[in-house]
Formats: sequence, structure tokens, C-alpha cells
Amino acid sequence: MKYTDKLLHAITRTGSVLCVGLDPVPARMPEKLRSSGMSESEQVLEFCKNIIMHTRTYAAAYKPNLGFFEALGADGIAVFEELSTLFPEDVITIADAKRGDIGNTAHRYKTAFFDRWNYDAVTLSPLMGFDTITPYLTDSSKGVYVLALTSNPGAVDIFEQRLASGKTVSTLIAEKSAEMYERFPAHTGMVLGATQTAKLQELLNIHPNASLLIPGVGSQGGNIDSLKDALKVHNGLPLVNVSRSIIYSDNPLEESDYIEGIRLRAEGYHNLLKPIAARYTEG
Amino acid sequence: MKYTDKLLHAITRTGSVLCVGLDPVPARMPEKLRSSGMSESEQVLEFCKNIIMHTRTYAAAYKPNLGFFEALGADGIAVFEELSTLFPEDVITIADAKRGDIGNTAHRYKTAFFDRWNYDAVTLSPLMGFDTITPYLTDSSKGVYVLALTSNPGAVDIFEQRLASGKTVSTLIAEKSAEMYERFPAHTGMVLGATQTAKLQELLNIHPNASLLIPGVGSQGGNIDSLKDALKVHNGLPLVNVSRSIIYSDNPLEESDYIEGIRLRAEGYHNLLKPIAARYTEG
Repeated sequence: MKYTDKLLHAITRTGSVLCVGLDPVPARMPEKLRSSGMSESEQVLEFCKNIIMHTRTYAAAYKPNLGFFEALGADGIAVFEELSTLFPEDVITIADAKRGDIGNTAHRYKTAFFDRWNYDAVTLSPLMGFDTITPYLTDSSKGVYVLALTSNPGAVDIFEQRLASGKTVSTLIAEKSAEMYERFPAHTGMVLGATQTAKLQELLNIHPNASLLIPGVGSQGGNIDSLKDALKVHNGLPLVNVSRSIIYSDNPLEESDYIEGIRLRAEGYHNLLKPIAARYTEG
Repeated sequence: MKYTDKLLHAITRTGSVLCVGLDPVPARMPEKLRSSGMSESEQVLEFCKNIIMHTRTYAAAYKPNLGFFEALGADGIAVFEELSTLFPEDVITIADAKRGDIGNTAHRYKTAFFDRWNYDAVTLSPLMGFDTITPYLTDSSKGVYVLALTSNPGAVDIFEQRLASGKTVSTLIAEKSAEMYERFPAHTGMVLGATQTAKLQELLNIHPNASLLIPGVGSQGGNIDSLKDALKVHNGLPLVNVSRSIIYSDNPLEESDYIEGIRLRAEGYHNLLKPIAARYTEG
């Protein structure tokens, strides 16, 4: 099945564009797990399994971020590997890896994420050039999300720099991504931060067919109404990622049942994002 | 010990600026290993151990590239982890990870490479901004190599783009790296491709104190003489990375003893790079 068909299916099934980010930090996990006697890696696996099991009604996609697993060493990557086999069939899985390296290395990373761990999509950094992206683009059932503009303050350092041509670096990345989208079987989408809605609309004008991965809602402060407005020009499909604001409680000590807390927060974001999902599933 | 002191010590000990890149691809490894009955991961560990043991007279540093280990899944990362404990004390170890992510994720990657696996240095991508670099810069015994200009054809896509200010993206990265170098305890160096010697000199004028990691010699075609010229303005310390051209034979079937082949090629690059090492150790 083509990546975009699978994505549409997942969004339609759940009525949701919610992507739940799996960023497990042992020190922030519930006390009930921390004191369970399990090893740290076992705790992380249990935590992630519970998140997936109790949010899947609300989530079209899951996005584990490799950094949070790598921090636990080889045991953490073993957890990442086991998780990869546990996702339900009808969700989109995105490996948030932000990899970017020359061709022979890119081939090895592709082997890891697509062939070995069978992710539907991966996030990639285009800094070293688009010849570092093309090795991932051979299979139409796969997607890549190219970093094009992020929500952190440092986005001004490179992404928002204006080129002599009048474009910004982000504009250039969107143009190149649109070109990859036309030329290759796999789907080339973009990562666009939710806090940058005016600029997001500009970039969508350049690559309107891009699947979007939109972080920055929740902890990072992105606003749903202005995001919905910015997506008016969009012909692709979006996923809005929420990580910390779903998987962790702001008041962990007041939360008697952490699994129910996760479910409730996922339901809350599902409802909050409904107007955006409706724009795509009813359009 | 400060990172740059450790680096100077390693270069002086070996009379060499050679960094041996560990990019193990099972299909390219010697037949003797491939048919040994060991698992693929065991073969890779054995291959890398032999490389380290038989090149350490010639190499000031080793640089495993994470992609080649991740391609083997969690077992590959377990090999990476075991390798991390096997490097001799007096060499520089660089995790070639090219990571780049927002603050909380950067902290987790830093935990992996510096705290858990105890690498001396890591390569980083500055695309998302320099707030993604600063989490790595707290400890003076550590170094980071920021991607500033690479040797692959795609370097024109972003690195060599000219900004409205007249600078290139690479120039801007060099300026920001020099600023990080001044402000933080850890050492901020740069990755500069060996094939780009004219531009390399420009970037060194901006951040002359940078430790450099220079890939692109060997398989990628960089020239030693023009590289030496470009380093005239350099006050920091360089490492020249060679991976495939040392660890693999061009004529594997004609090679009776693969370990001796690796040793001979490392010795060859050591000798080739001597004029560059001399410029730093005798200067």
C-alpha cells in the first residue's frame, strides 16, 4: 500500500491527525513504574506499551524519538526494536531519527529503519544535501519527513536565513522536497513547526502535496486555530505530534492512575485536533 | 584532561593526524570472517577489534559511524557499545552520529555518547540551530565537530548557498561555531570536507582555533598537498579521516591476510599524512 494511502486510512479510522510522540525519560516516568523492581529498560518498554495500548483509539500515528532510547544504551535500542514489532497494523509509525549522512551511510540507516525495523516513515535532516535523502526514496510504501522549519528558537540560525536569491533556507528545502516528491517512488513530506504558522503557509504553497509532520503543539505552545488557518492551502495530509504533554502529567503526584491520565490527555488532544482532522476527512 | 590536550597528546604520540573510520558493512568484510560461523554482529565486532589492534600505531583517533551499527539492529548497537569499552586509553574516540535535535532530545543524545559510552567527541548537525548544540558543551574534556562543509556533491544544496548578507551557510556555521568555542567549556570544532580546500581555508579564517575533522581523503578523492596548503592558517588541531580506503581492500580476492592488508593501508595513509602531522607537532 502506498504511504499516503496508509496515512489516509489511519487518519480516517481514528478521525484524528494526532501523532503520539514516544520520548521516554526514566526520571519523569510514573512512580508506580519506577519502584516496580524492573530494570530501567523494562520500565521504558512497559511505559511505551501502555501508552500505545491506551491511546490507539485517538492516535493515527506514533513517533518514537531515537535519542530517548539511545540514552539507555544498547538495552534502550533493544527496547526500541521490540516496540517496533508491537505497533498495531493500522497506525503509521515514524522513526524520529533526523539522520543525515552521505550515500553509503544513508543506505545503512535506511536498512535499519525501513528494512530491519519496518517503520513507515523516518525524519531526515537535509543539511548535507539532497543526495543524502534519495537513498530513502526507493519504495512507495515508505515516507520521509524532511526537516524544513522547526519551532525552537534556534530556527532563526539557519532555516530562517534569507538567501541572496530572496528565498530562505526553509523555502529552498521546500522546493527541493517538492522536486523529490515528483521524482521518486517514496513520499517526500516535511517537518514544519506548529508555532511558525505564517511561514508554514508559505512553505505549503511551494510543496502543497507534502505530508506534514507538525511538532510544537503542547509543551512548545503552538496554537490550533492559527494552525488550521495555515493548512488552508494544503493538499497533502498532516500529522500533529504531541509528546510530553500527553505522556507526562504536569502534576504526577496528584495522578492516581497514570494510564488513565495518559488516555485522558490523548483524548483531550484528539478532541482539540478534531477541526483539523475534519478538514481532511470531510474535504 | 581538556579535549584539545588529549587530542594533541594522541597526535604527538603517533606522529599522525590519521583518524580511522569504522564503517563495517558485513557484505564487504573479508571472506575469512564471513565464513567463520560467527553471527553477523560477532563478525563485525571481530572485524573492528582487529582494525583497532592493528592500526593503533598509526592512528590518533577512531571514528565509528553509528549508521553502520544501527543497520544491524539492537545487536549492532550492542557491538558499538562493547567497542566503546575496547579503545586504547591514549586515542581520541569520535562517535560519528551527526545528531541534531531540540534541547531535551539533545540532552538524551549527549547522555548516550558522552556519559554512557564515554566518547571524547561527537559529530553534530547544526541545521535546527545552535540551541541544539549547546547541551553538548558543558564539559571541557569533550569535543563536538559541527558539520560545516562536506565533500559530497549535495554540499552545494545548502552549505554553499549564498546568503543575502554575502556569507554562505557554511560561513555562518563557522562564525557560530567560533562563538560557541569562546562561550562554552567543551571544544567546538568543525567537520570540513577535504575536497573543498579553497573554501576550507576561508572557513578556517573565521574559526582558526577549531579542531577539524576532515573526511574525504581516500575513497572521496581529497588531495593531501592542497589540503596541507589550506591548513596554513590553522591554529587548532586536525584529524584526517579515512574509512573505506583502509578497512577494505580494492582486491579482496588477492589479499591473503586481511589484517596485514589493513595494517599496510593504515601505514600508507600514516606516511601520506606525515607532512600534515609535522606542521602541527613541529610548529
